[in-house]
Amino acid sequence: MKIETIKDPSFLKQYNVRQCVDLAADIRKFLIESISKTGGHLSSNLGVVELTIALHKIFDSPTDKFIFDVGHQSYIHKILTGRASQFQTLRQYHGLSGFQKRAEGPYDPWEAGHSSTSLSAALGMATARDLNHDNYHVIAIIGDGSLTGGMAMEALNNIGDSKHKVIIIFNDNNMSISKNVGGMNKAFSKLRSSSQYLNLKDDVKKVLSHDRTGQVLLQGMKNVRDSIKKGIIQDTIFSEYGIDYLGPINGHNFHDLFSALEMAKKHTGSIVVHVVTKKGMGYLPAQNDKFGLWHGVGKFDVVTGQSLSKTPEGMKSWSEIISDELTVLAKDDAKICAITPAMLQGSKLEKFAKQFPERTFDCGIAEQHAMTFAAGLAQQEFHPFISVYSSFLQRCYDQIHHDVCRMNLPVIIGVDRCGIVGEDGSTHQGIYDISFLSAIPNLIVAQPKNAKEAKDLLYTASKTNRPFAIRYPRGTVEDTNEKGELIPIGSWTTSGFSNKHAIITYGCDVERVYKKVVDNHLPLDVINARFMKPLDEECLLHLAKTHEKLYIYETDCKIGGLGSMVLTFYNDHQISIPIQIFAIGDHFVEHGSIPELRKQEGIDITHVLETIEKEIHSS
Amino acid sequence: MKIETIKDPSFLKQYNVRQCVDLAADIRKFLIESISKTGGHLSSNLGVVELTIALHKIFDSPTDKFIFDVGHQSYIHKILTGRASQFQTLRQYHGLSGFQKRAEGPYDPWEAGHSSTSLSAALGMATARDLNHDNYHVIAIIGDGSLTGGMAMEALNNIGDSKHKVIIIFNDNNMSISKNVGGMNKAFSKLRSSSQYLNLKDDVKKVLSHDRTGQVLLQGMKNVRDSIKKGIIQDTIFSEYGIDYLGPINGHNFHDLFSALEMAKKHTGSIVVHVVTKKGMGYLPAQNDKFGLWHGVGKFDVVTGQSLSKTPEGMKSWSEIISDELTVLAKDDAKICAITPAMLQGSKLEKFAKQFPERTFDCGIAEQHAMTFAAGLAQQEFHPFISVYSSFLQRCYDQIHHDVCRMNLPVIIGVDRCGIVGEDGSTHQGIYDISFLSAIPNLIVAQPKNAKEAKDLLYTASKTNRPFAIRYPRGTVEDTNEKGELIPIGSWTTSGFSNKHAIITYGCDVERVYKKVVDNHLPLDVINARFMKPLDEECLLHLAKTHEKLYIYETDCKIGGLGSMVLTFYNDHQISIPIQIFAIGDHFVEHGSIPELRKQEGIDITHVLETIEKEIHSS
Repeated sequence: MKIETIKDPSFLKQYNVRQCVDLAADIRKFLIESISKTGGHLSSNLGVVELTIALHKIFDSPTDKFIFDVGHQSYIHKILTGRASQFQTLRQYHGLSGFQKRAEGPYDPWEAGHSSTSLSAALGMATARDLNHDNYHVIAIIGDGSLTGGMAMEALNNIGDSKHKVIIIFNDNNMSISKNVGGMNKAFSKLRSSSQYLNLKDDVKKVLSHDRTGQVLLQGMKNVRDSIKKGIIQDTIFSEYGIDYLGPINGHNFHDLFSALEMAKKHTGSIVVHVVTKKGMGYLPAQNDKFGLWHGVGKFDVVTGQSLSKTPEGMKSWSEIISDELTVLAKDDAKICAITPAMLQGSKLEKFAKQFPERTFDCGIAEQHAMTFAAGLAQQEFHPFISVYSSFLQRCYDQIHHDVCRMNLPVIIGVDRCGIVGEDGSTHQGIYDISFLSAIPNLIVAQPKNAKEAKDLLYTASKTNRPFAIRYPRGTVEDTNEKGELIPIGSWTTSGFSNKHAIITYGCDVERVYKKVVDNHLPLDVINARFMKPLDEECLLHLAKTHEKLYIYETDCKIGGLGSMVLTFYNDHQISIPIQIFAIGDHFVEHGSIPELRKQEGIDITHVLETIEKEIHSS
Repeated sequence: MKIETIKDPSFLKQYNVRQCVDLAADIRKFLIESISKTGGHLSSNLGVVELTIALHKIFDSPTDKFIFDVGHQSYIHKILTGRASQFQTLRQYHGLSGFQKRAEGPYDPWEAGHSSTSLSAALGMATARDLNHDNYHVIAIIGDGSLTGGMAMEALNNIGDSKHKVIIIFNDNNMSISKNVGGMNKAFSKLRSSSQYLNLKDDVKKVLSHDRTGQVLLQGMKNVRDSIKKGIIQDTIFSEYGIDYLGPINGHNFHDLFSALEMAKKHTGSIVVHVVTKKGMGYLPAQNDKFGLWHGVGKFDVVTGQSLSKTPEGMKSWSEIISDELTVLAKDDAKICAITPAMLQGSKLEKFAKQFPERTFDCGIAEQHAMTFAAGLAQQEFHPFISVYSSFLQRCYDQIHHDVCRMNLPVIIGVDRCGIVGEDGSTHQGIYDISFLSAIPNLIVAQPKNAKEAKDLLYTASKTNRPFAIRYPRGTVEDTNEKGELIPIGSWTTSGFSNKHAIITYGCDVERVYKKVVDNHLPLDVINARFMKPLDEECLLHLAKTHEKLYIYETDCKIGGLGSMVLTFYNDHQISIPIQIFAIGDHFVEHGSIPELRKQEGIDITHVLETIEKEIHSS
């Protein structure tokens, strides 16, 4: 079948199992080829090809609502709902989103990007349906990784007590991005392995009429609870929450999937359908991946499985610079620990984990717990480093505030993927953390301009008995193999104080701006505001005395950003100096490449410096 | 026993059960009398008198670490650790905190105020202990309400997979502040009722030697898992998380408590001890309270149980003004729903719930889920109102950002208890929400000056298809029985533009300031900045043209507050006008009465207006 010709999923209603098997093969081929050219989430989508086809055969989207938790595994759903021809634009500027996106049409009723939200959304929609006396199904598709997120468990607790029916497809591949952890995971393993897959016939009627209970059910179609009792484990974590459970089901067997989904459809009350899938199914390099390397990929060679994007010689990712330096520091400082909420690989903490397994803690997708666990360690005089992507850090705002900073505990927060992140889009932009972190008392917030300064900041944080957040972006930076040194907290650096104009910026833009200034002979001092909090008050006072105008160039959200803090500082000191702020406006930023998005937001270096140059020359 | 003479808990080691019973009676008497004079958390403390005595008898605080979840039920712990004589200062300025407080000494290793953090903290401390090869116990005491918080479940998941032993005292009184909800609660009820209390002898040796397994155990003292198997339900939610379970135990029976705690102490690996307690135990009005009225109380008459604080005639709490108006609006608008995370009573939503039970949702202590559940309802065209205390709103920052505002869904967020809240102290101050909410795109943030404006804002929110946060403080306000009307979003009001100076403020301070201005004949325009976002740009532009100086009087955190947004606005428009900001500085604010704390922070009206008056006269 030519995948690009699919307009909507209605054709599936007539499809038999054989045809579905063929379709699955075609979709896999399409996915692998397409993602090999654009990059994207491969493994998780390959794992749910049969499941997604089965969902669209048994249910009626968009009348029935599919909510894919996180949404990165909705590619097959996009294909079956007529979006295959747009896959060449996947995750590109103005192209197809890598997640469910309401703007892409009625088949996507919900959006996400962060994990564990689908159950709450589903219960909300199911409640709305019943209040409206409507009659559709709300189906959340959630992975075992996402289930370890606290809000998913909060939702389970509420669903188990609610009369509004939600169908929960528990997509169990025993992985989040990489290997799952946690006590629940053991229970899931037990569920997975303690019985064979539930032996379901391809005709649900046959299954239900199999015994007397089934016959009664067929008449009333009230409840399949009794009929599914046999052959499954009754005491699951879901039954503890008061939710019926059906499974485990082989997620790559259409017969079983069709039957199970039909039963779930007819079931009275909320139900969990436990579907066991294999991440990367059908593409060997992805299928055999234990470390999550094929979770999200760049362009790759389909035949060899080799990545086509290379880290340039001498360069390292920012995460790697930080994590490698942490490993160095931990050799001399037995109090240093590393904590990750299921992001060991993304945060490049594997080396640390290998060298200090006792001091490495993967808490699962559980940012809240991870942050307060760090606080507990710090309270007993350890010095934990916890690395969280900027946008996911939102999940533990309260824990940073109430547990870490209120008690002034020395937790080092690695704010990874800060700033515009690009292709993942509006759910992942790390442009808000300066705003939400800076109002928290006791917290130091900093960002290095280069690898050396990253090491300096980490070293300084390790010698500082206070909470300390270090931001760093996606992408790579040249590693100069210098050692980290102590730097004064709140100190900025400058290219000099020789001009009448100065630009204050931070992060990797400091050196980029400086290069442009030198190349173009601009009469502009470049200030490296490596601490957003505390500000370098001495530097600011000096600048006000010696300069005519300051430009503040931020690559994050303007409200509550560095510029607003500088303005407040000067105002508090009754100092008046012209200031112009370049920063991201008050709106969400969609997906695209970082350069494209910077341009769109008016914060690309060329534009900023041209504007300043014109200003200087006209003044 | 004279309770005030207790210096430390060491005397308990020699106490027999009879003496403990007497002590419990004395402590209850002390608690009731003391709290009747100061106010405080009564019911929850009365419920854990025996439990806390038993904990201090069996364990060795401060070597062993007690972490009381939330910490409002740590009064007996405070008494037994030598703080009884300070109870007359409870929750007062510079007095004893109502929660565990590290500054009060080594017996309080952890602080909280928000729920569900104890398990994460305990695992952190237990991990630190083992990394240090230390040998103490870490004991978290957590209620069934707090267990419904997602981060507690994240922690259970991690503890079940960790080799670091934590003792979890599951203090099950079948209540949070009021009646608990959720599927888990049903499972707990089943646990509670399906068997009698675990029949424990007062001598743990006898219990353990009861059978052959026990005898082996007594030798090795390796694991009591097998000995506790009998008479209890094996499949608990805790075993799903991989944690051993012991219980249920009668939490008012010293024999059983001593035995169970001894067993937990000797157990290898983490264990949950399920202790069933009765909230309010020993004081009838509190004991019979189903609605949480005795959870936190003001001064009361011990004999009659009558409250000694009265709401003045014609006054209502802000929460009541909002909730009552919501009830009025919901009569005409079938899309309005009310959502609370276990705060039905605190948010004064009982009337709404009674009138619209189908449209009222208590999600349990689960702010994250509750917020995204609201988003789900809104996505299906309902218009939910969710009321959350400002400081607890920190728990669902990501959900407000990622789910509600990113999708621009019309959720009305009632930000209750904003500003300085007083006696609850640093964990409860609602002074950060303007800072963390204002950077979120699409969100409207507002605060009414009086009851009429509260109704106007709620009415306007109900007619606005966008996320809309309405802040309101603790305390009461005169109800004028006027109807809510539509007001333009982002519009401020003013006492006039007749002076050269203006003060911009918000909330109940608008009328208080205005009264002072009139009384003292100050040449000052009073501006009601009822919208923090969006700002009234027209008003600001006009002020800049007509005024010499502006004073911004905020009763919240300065960083990221209204003042910083006004400064940024003027700077963006290249407008220079002298501005002086009064706001709370960059530090946490401890407990005390609101007037005392306002004075301490330099934001009491008298001080602010005297400062301004001097300025005006000297200018």
